[in-house]
Amino acid sequence: MEKTVMLRHGDGGKHTSILIKDIFYKHFHNDMLVNSLDASVFDGIHGRLAFTTDSFVVKPLVFPGGNIGKLAVCGTINDLVAAGARSLYLSCGFIIEEGFDMELLERIAASIGETCRKTGVKIITGDTKVVEKGSVDGVFINTSGIGVVQAQYQPKPIQAGDQIIITGGIAQHGTTIAVERYGIKVEENIKSDCRPLNHILEKLQTYMGSIKLMKDPTRGGLATALNEILEASGRGIQLLEEAIPIAVEVKSINELLGLDPLYHACEGRLIIVVDKQKARAVLEEIWQCEDCEDAAIIGSFLSTGLFPKVVMETVIGGRRIVGPLEGDMLPRIC
Amino acid sequence: MEKTVMLRHGDGGKHTSILIKDIFYKHFHNDMLVNSLDASVFDGIHGRLAFTTDSFVVKPLVFPGGNIGKLAVCGTINDLVAAGARSLYLSCGFIIEEGFDMELLERIAASIGETCRKTGVKIITGDTKVVEKGSVDGVFINTSGIGVVQAQYQPKPIQAGDQIIITGGIAQHGTTIAVERYGIKVEENIKSDCRPLNHILEKLQTYMGSIKLMKDPTRGGLATALNEILEASGRGIQLLEEAIPIAVEVKSINELLGLDPLYHACEGRLIIVVDKQKARAVLEEIWQCEDCEDAAIIGSFLSTGLFPKVVMETVIGGRRIVGPLEGDMLPRIC
Repeated sequence: MEKTVMLRHGDGGKHTSILIKDIFYKHFHNDMLVNSLDASVFDGIHGRLAFTTDSFVVKPLVFPGGNIGKLAVCGTINDLVAAGARSLYLSCGFIIEEGFDMELLERIAASIGETCRKTGVKIITGDTKVVEKGSVDGVFINTSGIGVVQAQYQPKPIQAGDQIIITGGIAQHGTTIAVERYGIKVEENIKSDCRPLNHILEKLQTYMGSIKLMKDPTRGGLATALNEILEASGRGIQLLEEAIPIAVEVKSINELLGLDPLYHACEGRLIIVVDKQKARAVLEEIWQCEDCEDAAIIGSFLSTGLFPKVVMETVIGGRRIVGPLEGDMLPRIC
Repeated sequence: MEKTVMLRHGDGGKHTSILIKDIFYKHFHNDMLVNSLDASVFDGIHGRLAFTTDSFVVKPLVFPGGNIGKLAVCGTINDLVAAGARSLYLSCGFIIEEGFDMELLERIAASIGETCRKTGVKIITGDTKVVEKGSVDGVFINTSGIGVVQAQYQPKPIQAGDQIIITGGIAQHGTTIAVERYGIKVEENIKSDCRPLNHILEKLQTYMGSIKLMKDPTRGGLATALNEILEASGRGIQLLEEAIPIAVEVKSINELLGLDPLYHACEGRLIIVVDKQKARAVLEEIWQCEDCEDAAIIGSFLSTGLFPKVVMETVIGGRRIVGPLEGDMLPRIC
């Protein structure tokens, strides 16, 4: 195998076939990815299905806690989790720059394979394009996913008093990327929270009837995600700053950079809106999930109003309106 | 709305939301694309499902007969057609270069919408990323698709005597792109065959039991597609050059360019392998489909052999072994 990816690896001929077999099939291996047809066929599934897509353009391609491959699989699994769905099948499309390092490509593919095996998700169809040097920055990946929605779950109207849970410390992914991009030397050991959230969905199965909505706060962070929920519900949100879990090092780095962690992407966190009566019980279940010991109730919904807003009670006793992301945060966070 | 796409249109915040509503929702409008959630949910489907993905990086973005948007929708619909499936739902992911012309983006989105309406396919989930100028060449699009496989269809073992049908003139798309890329002035009116093939699947419903395999000869063209079928079947193929439909202008341009039309991508043709007894009847049905008046039986399968090959009987009475694409054809054909 060549040391770098060449244009002919994307021409659909013999070399594409070699690349697919030696790198992708090798790492994505599963019983359904056996032929070289352009579509994969599987038996119809009972119940409701969820379908999602995401393109990943993160820069740098490798960062503390993950790489573009792991991020792509986790991102799509988590979008399905937010829809109450267990991921079944993924597609994976690569757009690769001519001259891209073959070892790095294999490392990315290996991460994808590992995350799939860990979560029981299968990549059943894919696509590989190679473009001339300078026409894409390294490699971009699209993952689309099909999942089956938990029978007991469907989004429900949000009511006054409904509680907002975040499953752990916020802003880790965005802050990690910022540190890498600005080339800052930090003493703290900071890494992305990039991880699949399917285990949380499994853990909460008996509470699906009390969960009103779920959302993963990726691009635009917690603040933007809450504003989207607000817009859909028509209800204001009261947020408690002191309740929002955030690691000390994440906080201090953002103070240094002058960035607001509320707008930083999380790639391994879930916002869960839950009936007030069940909020504590749900929270206790979440605490038992891996990496969720900092999960917390961070706010609640208010009565409907004409101009609903996300209002945060700050630690110093003030009130701050938290709007959706408007300015320019870091591009290419995911 | 701004005249060009800016980085903030991809930050997941307010401006992303405006871009999605003003351009994508406007043109992709359907009853299932109404909320801004990251995944769409639909009822489970009886029968087998097919799933496929394709990223499109075609250059130029607009070409005679289509643009990257139309190509993306047709490409995914046709991959599903080749699996015997009627397309139901598509995802659509855009990766856009900062500074990209907003009008052109809307023109591309409009083509996608138009092709969806024409074929009854719905885009139910999407994603938009914007990257810095120079990090992607214009716009790349990923479309993934879910279809339901025709109850009567499944791929069957290919036998000696099985006939190979092509649904019309070959090499139109690849030749069109070549003409554009080399900047050749041609007197002939040549355009891409980019089109959705769902109508052919509908027309052939009663013959699904006699169809052994279907494949759309995109990258690598007819020659590469036939070699892939050969590899899967273990049977040699006898191809008749004089039977292969090819427009006079396509032929003459390729002679001029020194390119072999057998390796040029088609984006609106289907290879159908059919039982000998039913081949003529299937062909007559295809002739009735739009743009398929040149459909022809172009070859047949031989007995199994140790080193099966695609052998073409040439018009001058010779024999030529037609291998899969090995050299460098034009990159970024689709």
